[in-house]
Amino acid sequence: MTKNVLVLPGDGIGPEIVAQAVRVLDAVNEQFSLNIVHESALVGGSAYDETGSPLPEATLSKAKAADAILLGAVGGPKWDKLDMSVRPEKGLLGLRSNLELFSNLRPAILYPQLADASSLKPEIVAGLDILIVRELTGGIYFGQPRGIRTLENGEREGYNTYVYNESEIRRIGRSAFEAARQRGKRVCSIDKSNVLEVTVLWKEVMEEVAKEYPDVELTHMLVDNAAMQLVRAPKQFDVMVTGNMFGDILSDAAAMLTGSIGMLPSASLNAEGRGMYEPCHGSAPDIAGKGIANPLATILSVAMMLRYSLDAKDAADAIEAAVSHVLDLGLRTADIASKGSETVSTQAMGDAVLNAL
Amino acid sequence: MTKNVLVLPGDGIGPEIVAQAVRVLDAVNEQFSLNIVHESALVGGSAYDETGSPLPEATLSKAKAADAILLGAVGGPKWDKLDMSVRPEKGLLGLRSNLELFSNLRPAILYPQLADASSLKPEIVAGLDILIVRELTGGIYFGQPRGIRTLENGEREGYNTYVYNESEIRRIGRSAFEAARQRGKRVCSIDKSNVLEVTVLWKEVMEEVAKEYPDVELTHMLVDNAAMQLVRAPKQFDVMVTGNMFGDILSDAAAMLTGSIGMLPSASLNAEGRGMYEPCHGSAPDIAGKGIANPLATILSVAMMLRYSLDAKDAADAIEAAVSHVLDLGLRTADIASKGSETVSTQAMGDAVLNAL
Ligand SMILES: CC(C)[C@H](C(=O)O)[C@@H](O)C(=O)O
Ligand SMILES: CC(C)[C@H](C(=O)O)[C@@H](O)C(=O)O
Repeated sequence: MTKNVLVLPGDGIGPEIVAQAVRVLDAVNEQFSLNIVHESALVGGSAYDETGSPLPEATLSKAKAADAILLGAVGGPKWDKLDMSVRPEKGLLGLRSNLELFSNLRPAILYPQLADASSLKPEIVAGLDILIVRELTGGIYFGQPRGIRTLENGEREGYNTYVYNESEIRRIGRSAFEAARQRGKRVCSIDKSNVLEVTVLWKEVMEEVAKEYPDVELTHMLVDNAAMQLVRAPKQFDVMVTGNMFGDILSDAAAMLTGSIGMLPSASLNAEGRGMYEPCHGSAPDIAGKGIANPLATILSVAMMLRYSLDAKDAADAIEAAVSHVLDLGLRTADIASKGSETVSTQAMGDAVLNAL
Repeated sequence: MTKNVLVLPGDGIGPEIVAQAVRVLDAVNEQFSLNIVHESALVGGSAYDETGSPLPEATLSKAKAADAILLGAVGGPKWDKLDMSVRPEKGLLGLRSNLELFSNLRPAILYPQLADASSLKPEIVAGLDILIVRELTGGIYFGQPRGIRTLENGEREGYNTYVYNESEIRRIGRSAFEAARQRGKRVCSIDKSNVLEVTVLWKEVMEEVAKEYPDVELTHMLVDNAAMQLVRAPKQFDVMVTGNMFGDILSDAAAMLTGSIGMLPSASLNAEGRGMYEPCHGSAPDIAGKGIANPLATILSVAMMLRYSLDAKDAADAIEAAVSHVLDLGLRTADIASKGSETVSTQAMGDAVLNAL
């Protein structure tokens, strides 16, 4: 049976890194006879420029029909002054919510070959392997009411609503526990239950979910402490589960612990395991078009896509092995360059992965 | 004229560390003829145990009458199951809001003597000196409506409101710009303006405030990026200004970059510069009563109190010099102990600071 992949290059470095990832996808498609077809569509700022919308109807309907989506990145200063309703980010948020991609898996892994890239001491991060499970379609990102209003005294007031119901918490909790079962069997749920009622409910529901997974250990941590513990001793964590906003902050901090965010893929899954795959990093407008961006996070996102949504574990393994091999060879894009390594272009990095395959 | 200081030891290690800080306060009071008197009151879990309230009326009225407040820490597992309305944290939050202590100054400074304590590489953190200015009486901590309700389908839903009006943003903005004027003249305002309307307003008002301070540079950063940049290259920052929730997370991360959060004081000020002073760290219930907690953050909070609220700069300088001298001597409490240093008790550390004065 044919599998349909929708490719959304997006903005900034998106098109460059996605181009390399698609070459890799094509290669394993042939090598492993996967029967994958793919087409491209517009999203983000580039979609706004062409159509006036960051998420055109055509893109959304293709996304709904696809078996999996590969996304580059969206956003950039060019669109910063736009009204929030048509900013590039709304394209991304619209895909997440329309496709109900509630479970965002963000691994923070330190590649042994890149141990030096971290700003942390080697003994603190060597062997780091955390998975952050972030709720992606609820919380303060989507809560109503929201906006900016004028008060009676003439002053303006901005407001957003941080809201979760039990089923939203339960399903992301199950995602985290399922993931933990495949790993270290420990879930740490992050909340601010000493201040925010919504996270009191979060904590309670996590306790309930934990009862379904007697083989997995659940602990709780306050978000401020979690931010500290990530800096102090990140290896204490296996799986961290948290809401949309805290997850945004903590997953970026965790990714940066590795010093090589250009290496980290992510998956955003719905209840059936269909999903969107993208690098953890952003659209890096400052280096867009220069051909120096690191395509490996996007290439590794293809591997995640093959594993989680396209039932092609062998092809996923092959890509990950090829990336590791390329690192062993000492090839590095500028973002992860270090003394003694060879700095290569986006395209050359793609070539090297293809060769290794 | 007599100055009144209210001492609130609080919970956990609070009483132990505050005891040493009060000895230091008494010493400089005599040495510099400061005419300071102080009395103690209950707050937090210990207040709840005695009176049924984490912020008894008597404490609040003494706090309102005081020229400055010295707080230890509140909270602990003993009170974790209490209803949110009477948890120890409500004592702290009640003081902040009743006294309108909207401006929370949290320095993250790496003491050269303690450079090894950081989990980051020395070159990343050597000389670190950031000031985080956190809004403390608004935002999602105090926003209404809030709570947990039952929906029509029988499910529960938790909700909180993230809200700021222009004057709240303006006054914390001015605090940050004033502080920057005394330092590196750079303010970085942290928001999530690509998603949250309340922080779109935040960003706009910061731009307005910046016009009043042409000698200070304003930049903006998204909170997820800020969490990354603190890990990657913290020395790029001078003053960071942000709301209550982001400030809670980022200031703890920043403090932990130094590896010696046991050294960091903080100030919470109202519009007249009256304030509450407390260590950045918490009540550390796991080591409470053992006599091993680090009193230096509380002692340095006394110095901050003398400088900001009690007009006693010389006494503040003397305390800071004494602390630095004690570190030079190689004395360390367990939290900052390292090879070659002498590990001392809470009391012995207090003795050493007194000797150095
Ligand atoms: C681009 C932005 C809306 C997005 C988010 O905040 O979720 C990004 O930071 C991310 O983490 O994927
Ligand atoms: C104890 C808690 C309510 C408090 C806060 O979240 O503000 C603490 O974490 C702090 O940062 O002072």
